[in-house]
Amino acid sequence: MKSFDQILESLKQLNTNLFANDFLLTWEKTEDELKQTLLVAEALKTLRENNISTKVFDSGLAVSNFRDNSTRTRFSFASACNMLGLEVQDLDEGKSQIAHGETVRETANMISFLTDVIGIRDDMFLGEGHTYMKEVGDALDDGFRNGVLPQRPGIVNLQCDIDHPTQAMADLMHLANYYGGLENLKGKKIAMTWAYSPSYGKPLSVPQGIIGLMTRFGMEVDLAYPEGYNLIDDVVTLAGKNAAASGGSFRVVNSMEVAFHNADIVYPKSWAPFEVMLRRTPLLKNNDKNGLKALEEECLANNARFKDWECTEEMMKLTKDGKALYMHCLPADISGVSCDEGEVQGSVFERYRIETYKEAGFKPYIIAAMILNNKFKNAAAILKKLDERGTGRILV
Amino acid sequence: MKSFDQILESLKQLNTNLFANDFLLTWEKTEDELKQTLLVAEALKTLRENNISTKVFDSGLAVSNFRDNSTRTRFSFASACNMLGLEVQDLDEGKSQIAHGETVRETANMISFLTDVIGIRDDMFLGEGHTYMKEVGDALDDGFRNGVLPQRPGIVNLQCDIDHPTQAMADLMHLANYYGGLENLKGKKIAMTWAYSPSYGKPLSVPQGIIGLMTRFGMEVDLAYPEGYNLIDDVVTLAGKNAAASGGSFRVVNSMEVAFHNADIVYPKSWAPFEVMLRRTPLLKNNDKNGLKALEEECLANNARFKDWECTEEMMKLTKDGKALYMHCLPADISGVSCDEGEVQGSVFERYRIETYKEAGFKPYIIAAMILNNKFKNAAAILKKLDERGTGRILV
Amino acid sequence: MKSFDQILESLKQLNTNLFANDFLLTWEKTEDELKQTLLVAEALKTLRENNISTKVFDSGLAVSNFRDNSTRTRFSFASACNMLGLEVQDLDEGKSQIAHGETVRETANMISFLTDVIGIRDDMFLGEGHTYMKEVGDALDDGFRNGVLPQRPGIVNLQCDIDHPTQAMADLMHLANYYGGLENLKGKKIAMTWAYSPSYGKPLSVPQGIIGLMTRFGMEVDLAYPEGYNLIDDVVTLAGKNAAASGGSFRVVNSMEVAFHNADIVYPKSWAPFEVMLRRTPLLKNNDKNGLKALEEECLANNARFKDWECTEEMMKLTKDGKALYMHCLPADISGVSCDEGEVQGSVFERYRIETYKEAGFKPYIIAAMILNNKFKNAAAILKKLDERGTGRILV
Repeated sequence: MKSFDQILESLKQLNTNLFANDFLLTWEKTEDELKQTLLVAEALKTLRENNISTKVFDSGLAVSNFRDNSTRTRFSFASACNMLGLEVQDLDEGKSQIAHGETVRETANMISFLTDVIGIRDDMFLGEGHTYMKEVGDALDDGFRNGVLPQRPGIVNLQCDIDHPTQAMADLMHLANYYGGLENLKGKKIAMTWAYSPSYGKPLSVPQGIIGLMTRFGMEVDLAYPEGYNLIDDVVTLAGKNAAASGGSFRVVNSMEVAFHNADIVYPKSWAPFEVMLRRTPLLKNNDKNGLKALEEECLANNARFKDWECTEEMMKLTKDGKALYMHCLPADISGVSCDEGEVQGSVFERYRIETYKEAGFKPYIIAAMILNNKFKNAAAILKKLDERGTGRILV
Repeated sequence: MKSFDQILESLKQLNTNLFANDFLLTWEKTEDELKQTLLVAEALKTLRENNISTKVFDSGLAVSNFRDNSTRTRFSFASACNMLGLEVQDLDEGKSQIAHGETVRETANMISFLTDVIGIRDDMFLGEGHTYMKEVGDALDDGFRNGVLPQRPGIVNLQCDIDHPTQAMADLMHLANYYGGLENLKGKKIAMTWAYSPSYGKPLSVPQGIIGLMTRFGMEVDLAYPEGYNLIDDVVTLAGKNAAASGGSFRVVNSMEVAFHNADIVYPKSWAPFEVMLRRTPLLKNNDKNGLKALEEECLANNARFKDWECTEEMMKLTKDGKALYMHCLPADISGVSCDEGEVQGSVFERYRIETYKEAGFKPYIIAAMILNNKFKNAAAILKKLDERGTGRILV
Repeated sequence: MKSFDQILESLKQLNTNLFANDFLLTWEKTEDELKQTLLVAEALKTLRENNISTKVFDSGLAVSNFRDNSTRTRFSFASACNMLGLEVQDLDEGKSQIAHGETVRETANMISFLTDVIGIRDDMFLGEGHTYMKEVGDALDDGFRNGVLPQRPGIVNLQCDIDHPTQAMADLMHLANYYGGLENLKGKKIAMTWAYSPSYGKPLSVPQGIIGLMTRFGMEVDLAYPEGYNLIDDVVTLAGKNAAASGGSFRVVNSMEVAFHNADIVYPKSWAPFEVMLRRTPLLKNNDKNGLKALEEECLANNARFKDWECTEEMMKLTKDGKALYMHCLPADISGVSCDEGEVQGSVFERYRIETYKEAGFKPYIIAAMILNNKFKNAAAILKKLDERGTGRILV
């Protein structure tokens, strides 16, 4: 791993425009900007491991708006904010007036008078999560421009219908760490494949995030799913363009075996077909329980046709030297552990369990980096100041 | 706006007794005390805008007790506490034992061992909210006197059945800011009027807070509502006395037009008739769903007779030069936006939308000022220290 | 009370191993370790009362995992963490994915990347709470050993099925304070007795915690309950051994009168019979509402046979000079106050009310001491540094 000084040096080489810009989709960011995010995350991790406080805020609020359940992202966001000195305040729509017809525009301002960052998770409704985040951003711009807000809170996408940038970036940091540098990912083959799960309705944002990001770094990306389980067209098209530009490759196949063949990395994970998510959105909105039940039954029956899409020991043998790195955003549906038949065989998961935990462990630092880059023009200078200040995180 | 030094100078001229006294009703406070609250709020705002930390507490808890839903007040309280260095801990009666017959006296002490302030919202039950806050205060006095509590937490009324002091004071700060000083409010006409809403059961505390406070500063206050929609008698009587003492005027009229005529400021807002709130209280207590449903239907039918009580462009033409300042505590029922027919016409609201946001933006500072004045004997001296200490809120 | 320097001096005399060890059961700790917990709690209290900041963490998370309702323990934990500089993040299983089959092992790591302490309350299911805490501890050990976690969060038992160490230790601190020192407890008689309550299903952890702890200090401990209301056998056996080792006594009697006779301290409190808790566990797990209802009815009927197990004025006359110290973990079922017939007569409770509040007031300091001892090798040195640093908790 790079030394702290090397990180600062690398940061200075980059030409970026992250300050005051929301982090909504990785593909809206340049390669330099993605690199800066990784470097700042690494720097914050280094400082913390050396017991040096990373509090850049003396006070200030961070609003979390989770429109879907979450444990790990909730804690990652809380950890990131705490690390920087911000206090999390949940916008819980259940106990707030937002559920009673209040407009997004107004609420966005009302929660932001002393707020530095807003983290939003909105992945339930296809066609809506990203749009909602843009709306919130527009409302904040409006409030800031008109003198309502003394500062413009940055927005961090904690998962939308299109992308899951904190997950994908944490995954990328894990890979860079595992292979000793981002540059070593060039030419590595990653299989992002659908896998069977006894549940249904899982969002598309993780596979979309992975193919949208990993194609940026010259990797050979295979997206595999049973016929009918396709993702949003635009993201697939984009992945192809990314691959062409970065000197990697991207293809869609309908065979888990083909994707696993000679793969360096495998990422088997269930998701619902795009069309199902489209049909599900109005049912969820209308709280149509019978409709949802019927759709669920239909989908589970369809899923059940593809129980062989499981990351078994047998399947793993197809990968490079039989030793591909297994990845997952967690929690995985582990056959014989968390379900009878699922995404991954118990012995495979167990062998890579600690690696998946480490993968998840990068997320707090990635989120903190996104916030720091959004709020400070010169990340390197601020990191240097933290190091020089040298306040202990724990009293010694 | 005054300079920071001018604010400190003004503070020194005042003769007040806010230290260790709860802020429950504006009319329990002297004019000097209200002025001090505004000045400290302004000072805190100035410090923050100059990136100077306003943390007067290194640690300590602030308890929030919301017995009714809230977004904006919840965030205002959280912002105020965070700004001063206190961490908010919610007393959520849903997930606490308070719902299981525990006495107020005991709970008040149990949550207060290391607590510096308690913010309470209790506006649902007429005749109860203010009484409850007094009970909590008595319990804290008892605990402090007997050595149970090392400090006596201050109480801030975040809305009760009688008054809404953080809202009314934020509104006053907005007016002082808009007109270039508190002294310029003398002789200005404000129309606090009922307006039609498709919902029912809105509390009386906002109109009561407005007539109870604005009559203190020589304003001409018109309270207007359809026959039957009267407020608590005592507050109306008090408003009259206030006006007489301050050299302003106060009158109750049953015409929106009369109130709007030549008004400098209009505050059209729905509320439920006092008598309805009285009838509603036992129904809520007994969770009598049929009774509540019947009462709601009766009231909505009655409301519907007064749909012409709407702040339209036509109505606005009646005001001073057709340009009265429109105010609202938000969220407003906006015709054609958040409802079909409501309190205010869409175009009127849109013209003043940013002003209503700014109005709301004063609340965090007002609450912070109430807390600071409660916990520090010499506000001016503490503010001076903050300025001299000069810790950056954001690292620079 | 000892001076701060005396406390530090006393701490240096102790030979303990609290660093990096969870605090799950008082009987897993040596007498020196219990003493250190009390001394550190006293030191933190002294510092705070002298307005000296006790923040040993500049940032960091504290996770609270309440698997049962709680007001006072929730606030005590929040106060303790805040006092030390940690921010509490609730793991609310209702709104997290933990309820959806996620393994304990995984979740324990996912919430711990930047976490210094985890407080757990799990007292509903007999045979499970303590086991769950051990599982979480094992998972954290695993994550720390494998480089997933940069630090191993300490676990504090905030009440399990076996013990309630933060309560029992706060009770002990109260007694040491009341009698002028731990050494003065030798030979004092304490009656831990069952008492009638109109509710049912109260956990066994308080009486078990009391007999498990008070027998360590040479006290004469009487455990009294109506036939059938026995506690977990192992804890009762342990209490006997403790008493023998410490030169005190322990006996089980089936008469409140016998226990009260000549008692210095009485602790009358309801609990459910061990066998009932055993039968209740599968019903709760299966959410068997009819079964729970039937069990409740049976138990309440059984309870009703023992309404004379009440701490009345008459009963108090049996105690040493009629003036035994009344203790309770709160909330008590007070006859004529919070229920018709309950654990304690109104006048008795009222006479000792303030004492029970003070008893509860030690809990935040006990919890803070447990955390500090878990995270710092040399408690005395850290406390000395806090004193020397002399940062004001409130700006002066």
